[in-house]
Amino acid sequence: MIRLNLSIELRYEIANHPSDFLFNIHAAQTRHQTIVAESLQITPPLMQVIYADPACGARFMRLKVDPGTLIVGYTATVDINHHRESPAHLSEVPVSRLPPSVMPYLYPSRYCQSDRLRRFATREFGHLQQGYWRAQAIQDWVRQRTTFMSGSSDVSTSAVDTLIEQVGVCRDFAHLMIALCRAVNLPARFVTGIDYGADPALGPTDFHAYVEVFLGDRWYLFEPSGVSPVMGLVRIGTGRDAADASFSTMFGAITSGAPLISITALHDEANGFFLPQPSPDALSSISSMDGA
Amino acid sequence: MIRLNLSIELRYEIANHPSDFLFNIHAAQTRHQTIVAESLQITPPLMQVIYADPACGARFMRLKVDPGTLIVGYTATVDINHHRESPAHLSEVPVSRLPPSVMPYLYPSRYCQSDRLRRFATREFGHLQQGYWRAQAIQDWVRQRTTFMSGSSDVSTSAVDTLIEQVGVCRDFAHLMIALCRAVNLPARFVTGIDYGADPALGPTDFHAYVEVFLGDRWYLFEPSGVSPVMGLVRIGTGRDAADASFSTMFGAITSGAPLISITALHDEANGFFLPQPSPDALSSISSMDGA
Amino acid sequence: MIRLNLSIELRYEIANHPSDFLFNIHAAQTRHQTIVAESLQITPPLMQVIYADPACGARFMRLKVDPGTLIVGYTATVDINHHRESPAHLSEVPVSRLPPSVMPYLYPSRYCQSDRLRRFATREFGHLQQGYWRAQAIQDWVRQRTTFMSGSSDVSTSAVDTLIEQVGVCRDFAHLMIALCRAVNLPARFVTGIDYGADPALGPTDFHAYVEVFLGDRWYLFEPSGVSPVMGLVRIGTGRDAADASFSTMFGAITSGAPLISITALHDEANGFFLPQPSPDALSSISSMDGA
Amino acid sequence: MIRLNLSIELRYEIANHPSDFLFNIHAAQTRHQTIVAESLQITPPLMQVIYADPACGARFMRLKVDPGTLIVGYTATVDINHHRESPAHLSEVPVSRLPPSVMPYLYPSRYCQSDRLRRFATREFGHLQQGYWRAQAIQDWVRQRTTFMSGSSDVSTSAVDTLIEQVGVCRDFAHLMIALCRAVNLPARFVTGIDYGADPALGPTDFHAYVEVFLGDRWYLFEPSGVSPVMGLVRIGTGRDAADASFSTMFGAITSGAPLISITALHDEANGFFLPQPSPDALSSISSMDGA
Repeated sequence: MIRLNLSIELRYEIANHPSDFLFNIHAAQTRHQTIVAESLQITPPLMQVIYADPACGARFMRLKVDPGTLIVGYTATVDINHHRESPAHLSEVPVSRLPPSVMPYLYPSRYCQSDRLRRFATREFGHLQQGYWRAQAIQDWVRQRTTFMSGSSDVSTSAVDTLIEQVGVCRDFAHLMIALCRAVNLPARFVTGIDYGADPALGPTDFHAYVEVFLGDRWYLFEPSGVSPVMGLVRIGTGRDAADASFSTMFGAITSGAPLISITALHDEANGFFLPQPSPDALSSISSMDGA
Repeated sequence: MIRLNLSIELRYEIANHPSDFLFNIHAAQTRHQTIVAESLQITPPLMQVIYADPACGARFMRLKVDPGTLIVGYTATVDINHHRESPAHLSEVPVSRLPPSVMPYLYPSRYCQSDRLRRFATREFGHLQQGYWRAQAIQDWVRQRTTFMSGSSDVSTSAVDTLIEQVGVCRDFAHLMIALCRAVNLPARFVTGIDYGADPALGPTDFHAYVEVFLGDRWYLFEPSGVSPVMGLVRIGTGRDAADASFSTMFGAITSGAPLISITALHDEANGFFLPQPSPDALSSISSMDGA
Repeated sequence: MIRLNLSIELRYEIANHPSDFLFNIHAAQTRHQTIVAESLQITPPLMQVIYADPACGARFMRLKVDPGTLIVGYTATVDINHHRESPAHLSEVPVSRLPPSVMPYLYPSRYCQSDRLRRFATREFGHLQQGYWRAQAIQDWVRQRTTFMSGSSDVSTSAVDTLIEQVGVCRDFAHLMIALCRAVNLPARFVTGIDYGADPALGPTDFHAYVEVFLGDRWYLFEPSGVSPVMGLVRIGTGRDAADASFSTMFGAITSGAPLISITALHDEANGFFLPQPSPDALSSISSMDGA
Repeated sequence: MIRLNLSIELRYEIANHPSDFLFNIHAAQTRHQTIVAESLQITPPLMQVIYADPACGARFMRLKVDPGTLIVGYTATVDINHHRESPAHLSEVPVSRLPPSVMPYLYPSRYCQSDRLRRFATREFGHLQQGYWRAQAIQDWVRQRTTFMSGSSDVSTSAVDTLIEQVGVCRDFAHLMIALCRAVNLPARFVTGIDYGADPALGPTDFHAYVEVFLGDRWYLFEPSGVSPVMGLVRIGTGRDAADASFSTMFGAITSGAPLISITALHDEANGFFLPQPSPDALSSISSMDGA
């Protein structure tokens, strides 16, 4: 079991007119990720509308905010009890047997133009043996080809751009891996969260983006940017790509500061809490029963 | 009430290996569109897996097909009893009050990069009075700026391309209108169907693509390409854009012929069946209760 | 007559290996722009290879630089005696009578995809009366539609991006105007220089990019970003677009600091030197005899 | 020596208004390609303005054509006496020693966005030993990765598109090879011509596009699409990419038929005329003295 304590502080300045926010910053609730405790502090106090997407455990919060300063603080203690599977047991699911709810993750999306990459992906990955290892081969290929560089991409950067330019941040690694997976008919999607265990040299802790691939009967985690162990990823949002899973969608004239985020892990082996570490197993933080 | 009879015949050649198809050709079932009769003929006979998306009434059929020829024939008699509303009564819904299920249709998608068009759309449409008329102004703007030309675009063509190049087919008109709507925070989505009433000079009847915009408490129909009256549109599929709502998604080495499609309308005023015609009302073919 | 004094200081750090630079920072020499005095200081001292393009007066300097710090200092006193013409006398030249050397400036280039904008430009500008006023109408359209914002674009940003996103810096304004001109068969090209008279609120003086359009028998100046009067532009480089006319092209692992640039104008009416100011005339800083 | 006889017939319909044409269909005249005989027939008879670019031997013809049908017939007998060099003797030229006239072919252009491919090209080709073999390795890489398919691309297709989609026609192969060469600082440009020796299964003879790379003291020929031996290429036009070297640039409302082209080679060994065949040598059809 992994226990992570996280804290997020977001700060915005709203000009002139009341503005709408849609936040997706609550830790997700799934059969494998439990919220032990959490608190939310909105300054100034505002009416919150919170709703959940049962299929992926994501929680959304809407705020309507008057001009001025908005501060959103969220803290949570989260236990993650990953589903583990031996990679050798995980096979790809034929298209004809994919659950209907998984089908949309085969299609191209805003930042993952898998339709344009069919030849490319088939040449690189079409001959590999199907299964978990193929998804991992795609992950490794993306990681090896792409240089992690802060500020090297922007909100318009797509998988095709990253493939061509071979540089990006975590979201770009995720988009490229997703696009290449879909291009060989592997359902793949975008997950956001907070990661424990990144090298501090990469800069302050920030929201992180990673990947899930559907194998066997559920979604398994991949971290193509390689900055932190999969085991240390707190799950927040899920989507086809970053267009769906922004931690904060703003409607209005708003300026935002950099998020202040911290995360720690509990090390208490006597009580079964281990630090996140690389694992030879395939890991999942969501059950095929979530959303059912 | 509108009664339409439609017939679709699709033909494919499958090379070498068994291939998977996902069809979305059944007329949708909603509270406003009723299937009076339908038949499906698959040659050679094959096991079909059919499932519906209750939220939009779309029905999907999967086939696994051995090498050789596949012919899919579908006929249906469909009654459409549109929900009608006076445009003057239809207002835009503030983001803070949109149903959660509508939110994804505010985000950019594969072919509708609304994120890149915010300044453009705000300059053109930001000052217009909100409501049905603004959606219609966007529709008219797209129709007036874009030349309908068969073969002028391909499966990679996006809203940005169409805005720049000002030429396209129905799907391109739809993508551009959707992208511009989302760029001013109007939820918009892509609908496929068969249209009654197009000018035969435009060529043989084919699958058609059009638009829905969320206004008041439901999705209202728009036909930006202007080739047929909204009233003559049989609803089939729904999605964020064409990536989600293809009538046929193929996995394998397959060549396809042109679809053979026909559609007729019943004219029987004594029994309440009228021919589709332009309407001053806003029309909807799906209820806010569908999917609930 | 305009007399401008300019000073440029550039600073680079070369890592590991000897690296090549191609600079285009000398003030151009044309029949209308005279170098009264200039000096160049390279630290450390290096062999310079300097050559000129007689057609546009541009001068290029190549350096091969060992690892370490490179500082390039250039100062010049430049007299500009513009060719002036009444806009009413300037007509567009039919394609069939354009000088061969002008033809390449009708074609699309890296950042000016005029081929994709033919319908767009024809709709917006095709009906306008041909001549200087049409070029100015295109300039004004670009200026009115595009927001000047530092940092809003990068080296990959093209005219199509700027048309869509409606934001950019001087180089983006120039690219968009050039692309739209070529799309209606007006030869247009990219000019770099230093501008006198910009609002200091826009930040420190930097290299500037502007536009020339071929009308009558020569190239006339346009400044689509509107940040400084055409009369205050010292000419440096000329190209189809920014791909050709970078002030500094580097081959190697190099980091560069921000340029330090200053420019002043001589005000000495007794001797015929006037401050740059807006002019109702069409102005040219290059002769049809240059390069002949 | 190679002697080729070629014949070109082009047909156009000009609607409504007099229209301008710029043709680049004459065989180029260089120190290695001699025009033994040629004839030109314009129907209806029209005044021709023909001019040459001495640097590359290209000849351009302008026509102003009234509404109606235009037929352009051109035949030529061309002797090509290639400059030959052993690949082992051909080294890359350091940027610091490239002739100024070669520099523009290092820069990105409309269809060859080498600026975006620096990391990609450096990873794939940066470690290879410099020289002819590296250019050939890039050629082979492009040929091996790209599927030749008629109709798979259009006039907007660029090197980046071809790299991503891995399909195209000769012009796309050329653009991709050029972009990758420039991205590792190898000057490369686009050449058009008629090719002898293509497999008839590829369809009727058409204009062809291929590549020149600057090595040693001149431009050497490469044929990345691999459809015909380099020795069988009649040189016509030269440019940075297809934007510069179209065989026909039209200004007006014009419809064009498919070109009718034929080419034969003289086999007369007694007189020193050999059929084009693959050669182990590096071949050039232009001299460093051309244009001097």
